[in-house]
Amino acid sequence: MEAVILAAGLGTRLRPLTESFPKPLLKVAGRELLYRHLHLLSQEGIRRFIIVINPQHEKFYREFLNRYPEFSCTLVKNPHPERGNGYSFYLARDFVSGPFVLTMGDHVYERDFIKKALGLRGLIVDREGLFISREEATKALCEEGLVIALDKRLSRYTGFDTGFFLLEPEIFTQAQKLVRQKEEISLSEIMQEARIPCSLLSGYFWMDVDTPEDLKKATRLLIKRAVKGSGDGLVSRLLNRRVSTWCSGFLVNYLTPNLATFLTSLLGLIAALLLFWNAKAAAILYQLSSMLDGMDGEIARASLRESPFGGWLDSVLDRIVDFAFLLGLYLLLKPAFAWQQAVALLAFFGSTMVSYTAERYKGAFKSDIYRDFPLLRFFPGKRDERVFFIMVAVLMGYIWEIFVVLALITNLRVAATLGMVALKKR
Amino acid sequence: MEAVILAAGLGTRLRPLTESFPKPLLKVAGRELLYRHLHLLSQEGIRRFIIVINPQHEKFYREFLNRYPEFSCTLVKNPHPERGNGYSFYLARDFVSGPFVLTMGDHVYERDFIKKALGLRGLIVDREGLFISREEATKALCEEGLVIALDKRLSRYTGFDTGFFLLEPEIFTQAQKLVRQKEEISLSEIMQEARIPCSLLSGYFWMDVDTPEDLKKATRLLIKRAVKGSGDGLVSRLLNRRVSTWCSGFLVNYLTPNLATFLTSLLGLIAALLLFWNAKAAAILYQLSSMLDGMDGEIARASLRESPFGGWLDSVLDRIVDFAFLLGLYLLLKPAFAWQQAVALLAFFGSTMVSYTAERYKGAFKSDIYRDFPLLRFFPGKRDERVFFIMVAVLMGYIWEIFVVLALITNLRVAATLGMVALKKR
Repeated sequence: MEAVILAAGLGTRLRPLTESFPKPLLKVAGRELLYRHLHLLSQEGIRRFIIVINPQHEKFYREFLNRYPEFSCTLVKNPHPERGNGYSFYLARDFVSGPFVLTMGDHVYERDFIKKALGLRGLIVDREGLFISREEATKALCEEGLVIALDKRLSRYTGFDTGFFLLEPEIFTQAQKLVRQKEEISLSEIMQEARIPCSLLSGYFWMDVDTPEDLKKATRLLIKRAVKGSGDGLVSRLLNRRVSTWCSGFLVNYLTPNLATFLTSLLGLIAALLLFWNAKAAAILYQLSSMLDGMDGEIARASLRESPFGGWLDSVLDRIVDFAFLLGLYLLLKPAFAWQQAVALLAFFGSTMVSYTAERYKGAFKSDIYRDFPLLRFFPGKRDERVFFIMVAVLMGYIWEIFVVLALITNLRVAATLGMVALKKR
Repeated sequence: MEAVILAAGLGTRLRPLTESFPKPLLKVAGRELLYRHLHLLSQEGIRRFIIVINPQHEKFYREFLNRYPEFSCTLVKNPHPERGNGYSFYLARDFVSGPFVLTMGDHVYERDFIKKALGLRGLIVDREGLFISREEATKALCEEGLVIALDKRLSRYTGFDTGFFLLEPEIFTQAQKLVRQKEEISLSEIMQEARIPCSLLSGYFWMDVDTPEDLKKATRLLIKRAVKGSGDGLVSRLLNRRVSTWCSGFLVNYLTPNLATFLTSLLGLIAALLLFWNAKAAAILYQLSSMLDGMDGEIARASLRESPFGGWLDSVLDRIVDFAFLLGLYLLLKPAFAWQQAVALLAFFGSTMVSYTAERYKGAFKSDIYRDFPLLRFFPGKRDERVFFIMVAVLMGYIWEIFVVLALITNLRVAATLGMVALKKR
């Protein structure tokens, strides 16, 4: 299947950013709008792209495509952008060989939107439009499964025009008729005249980017939607994620996910060293590194840079940081009796095993343990909770109690995991 | 695709085992010969089975099939087993609707043989016959890709008849001709007359089971072939596997894999407790549990009982046993200085992390770290090596040195893993 991407618009409302630069090449959450289309559509099996551009932007597009030779793209120049996006669309006609996707270069869609949409037909209409400014959005009125009106000023409408279409090449006959009749043609006119099918899809993030505020909003929302969260404990949900998504929003354009992993881990290791000078400051720094620990995953997913290596590195470095901090606390405490040392050893062991049992589960069952055993989410002892508890205890001066509580909680959690998995998966 | 399994033979050479009991229902490595065919062929997509049996064995087959309702089988009774296996084969003609697999109920094939064979055509001929008694085997002579002779007493031959065929229904025309001419017909005659294609496949385990010795041999070889070994260290390869495969051969009919996991882990925990009474005996028992640790996997694969749960449980219990034994040693040693305790903590941490990094890798990359990084196999510090080293050190009275060496070796190994993976997979 092929995809046509309309990218010839002038982006006047994004000036000065778009004074001489095309809007689809502006970055949202670390990636050009156009890259998002190419990447996500490629992953769903689209192999060829036809991009209709404004000739004055050609060199920017050439440069962009040189950086991403993995995409097979044809640039189609529209010498008359003033004739409207309907005319841009019409120019793609000779390059399309069968059913195709049509989408807008200045829109953002999350991965799941595109996955779902590709199974549908005609114009994708969103009944809810949760993430867009509804007054300014183009509305669609559908009857008996067909689009009968498409306009910003409809008083009665079925939903919002997502700018995402699945079309047959016959649509170009309709486009040609209008092109011969009129000078300026909008895409909406063509689709409305052609009475294309209409499919409903709601609940997924998409929006069009018109203003500088939209750029920020899209980044922020993509980061929020990038929170995976299946392994988040209570502290993560209530506190850490708010901090990490806020920071990710600022840093997504500057930090790669692996650099974020490295820096937060470094912060944790520094916190462990700091214990010997100022234990309270160290505990706060440790919690800070835990708050930022979600950034790598958020940045990775939001900027389409997920990698198996990133996940692996994050897990391994987390274990090392946790060990280092507990080792620091142990050396501060210097427990005298053998039984106290045994309790501390249990705390070390349990802290690593909470993650070991969950990660080994993923390797064995190719599935997330928290999805298969939602009950486990309510057991305390996940990393975010352990770190927060350690911080509070250090601030209150209870070091020995940290080891007692961790030894209990983490090993109980491991025992519960063993029991649950054995009962259900044996 | 369908499969025809010939199971009407009298199995005279296995008397008294087969006095009134059919040979294909005898167990090899914990599973009936017939079950192996049904299970392995099903997993490769064969959906229907036609089993030609001796009517006097019908009740045994019905009972067997009732136990395994997941297989869709048709039993075809051969009222004249004395007319030979060619006649048995002929009786399957009305139940076959397209290209089909033909195989012998008294043969054993390993999984990979069947996987490869299903991509080939005609009679599968093994040039090497590594696992069979070659004098007694049926030989095949092929010319220009066709079988031209099939007999035990060929002096010149291409290879050995594996009893595994991929055939077209037209073969039954040839069978019918012979059935009308003669009273006793062998399968070999039919195939030789029909000039079926011949495909070569060597290096995989298969054999026919004729005598009580064959039953034992097949079990032993299936266990040997079930050694996965990608995670085996030096001690495993030289010592532990020899012990575990020997024991698995005896116990495969009596132990489920999970019970084997449980019992060897229990042995390890008992060893940890025994440390407080007799450290040397405890160390030997710990090494014994490590030697038997391979049994669960061997039994699981050889008896077609592999499960994600089994792998998960084995890994988690291994970590717990290792922790328990090291904890025992720590409490025997009672290191006095904080720096000594820190070294011990590093030994605990590194011992778990060697496995964590490898298992987390499997979850992230869906691939075995030792296959992707063969160099890692030569780094010391895997479980079999750690346990063996601990035993030797305890026997020689060096307890403190155990922690020093483990702290070094295991953490160096983790660092090397981090480095290698980062360099190659980033």
